Amino acid sequence: MKRIKLEIAYDGTNYCGWQLQPGLPTIEAVINKALSELLGEEITVIGASRTDSGVHAKGNVAVFDTNTRIPAEKICLALNQRLPEDIKVQSSEEVALDFHPRKVNCRKTYEYRILNRKIALPMERLYSYFVYYPLDIHAMQKAAKYLVGTHDFKSFCSVKTQVKDTVRTIYDLTIRKEEDIIKITVTGNGFLYNMVRIIAGTLIEVGRGTLPPERIPEIVQGCDRSLAGPTAPPEGLTLINIEYLDNNFLRND
Amino acid sequence: MKRIKLEIAYDGTNYCGWQLQPGLPTIEAVINKALSELLGEEITVIGASRTDSGVHAKGNVAVFDTNTRIPAEKICLALNQRLPEDIKVQSSEEVALDFHPRKVNCRKTYEYRILNRKIALPMERLYSYFVYYPLDIHAMQKAAKYLVGTHDFKSFCSVKTQVKDTVRTIYDLTIRKEEDIIKITVTGNGFLYNMVRIIAGTLIEVGRGTLPPERIPEIVQGCDRSLAGPTAPPEGLTLINIEYLDNNFLRND
Repeated sequence: MKRIKLEIAYDGTNYCGWQLQPGLPTIEAVINKALSELLGEEITVIGASRTDSGVHAKGNVAVFDTNTRIPAEKICLALNQRLPEDIKVQSSEEVALDFHPRKVNCRKTYEYRILNRKIALPMERLYSYFVYYPLDIHAMQKAAKYLVGTHDFKSFCSVKTQVKDTVRTIYDLTIRKEEDIIKITVTGNGFLYNMVRIIAGTLIEVGRGTLPPERIPEIVQGCDRSLAGPTAPPEGLTLINIEYLDNNFLRND
Repeated sequence: MKRIKLEIAYDGTNYCGWQLQPGLPTIEAVINKALSELLGEEITVIGASRTDSGVHAKGNVAVFDTNTRIPAEKICLALNQRLPEDIKVQSSEEVALDFHPRKVNCRKTYEYRILNRKIALPMERLYSYFVYYPLDIHAMQKAAKYLVGTHDFKSFCSVKTQVKDTVRTIYDLTIRKEEDIIKITVTGNGFLYNMVRIIAGTLIEVGRGTLPPERIPEIVQGCDRSLAGPTAPPEGLTLINIEYLDNNFLRND
């Protein structure tokens, strides 16, 4: 028996998110099926991030256990031949049998893309959120600074969450503009349900001038979802990567 | 009666190209229908570039004649409300009644995108051509220099063309790499059927080392389609823009 770690990229457009849901197309279901067929064993992966419907990934992580004799590094290419074009494994490697992708210390990086111009661009529609009113980048950058650090992010968490501990650490939160695209890049030790999309929605309110950047600290301190901005739509969000720092069993779900 | 010029962006993925084809979804058909409904007149546009099935555009051009009282500049927004998300008009303006988008002097710019890495990326699949073997950019740049200028490009034209005069001028042909994406950008006074895709296919042969850059002049001089490389697939190609220089009735179809 060995444990294999996969890095997985996908276009979430045509899926109801990562997690298995009976009768619905999900990334996890497609990967379980392709792996089970390839290895001739019943495989169920454990994913690191259960991304929402319509959210994309360049480097989500999943692990599974197998008795296969196929070398770990070769699983990647063999699996890709059985995967559709909108899901492609980027790497496969053997890890310790007690490695759990949600229970070890890690840094996750997400990117939220906003298309900010007067008229929508068809080629950006699947991978960005179109905002036609002009956004003030500098105000957004100022607001972002208040979110960096260790805070109780309850105001930035969907009320649907079942998580009790809503304290998380944001290591880095940068906003830059390249032509018409504003990219919000955020790295943290873990994110609450919808947290990045609520941060994006709140920063957009700041960018359009309806929320002063100085209000961010009281929104954080209020620990109340209704204080923050709306949840920005899923198509703008991409999970960029997950870096595992060591094998400490710190919980950062 | 006035003549209106539209700049149109589209994602060609779900269309059988620009040009009307009975029973098939085409960009032209969607625009004619939306315009006719908006203006309450039977409208038929004349397009500048009849892009192929699967090819994209950020700035194709079309004109039509109308008796509408809607100001020319307002047609853009009103039309976009009737267009699907994968077709969006970027501007509308009145032009001279004798302005013909294919019969005046212009500069067209196309971009061909190649994803050059070992494993495909799902989010790039609709807008680039995936090439897994490493490409030598410098060899491609060297080859590109031979194509700039006024030449008979018959070797770089589909044999299906009906055009007799295969002489065209390429003003600029640059190749640059940004992360895993190689962008071939070409500006000319007009392009033959499949010309940019055959140039891309030929430069890829050069990049992979199967065709020395120094062979390009004899391929041009041979005036024989079979001498050049394959036609690269449509998804990598985007018509970036068309600049109209004056109203000379030079033919650059």
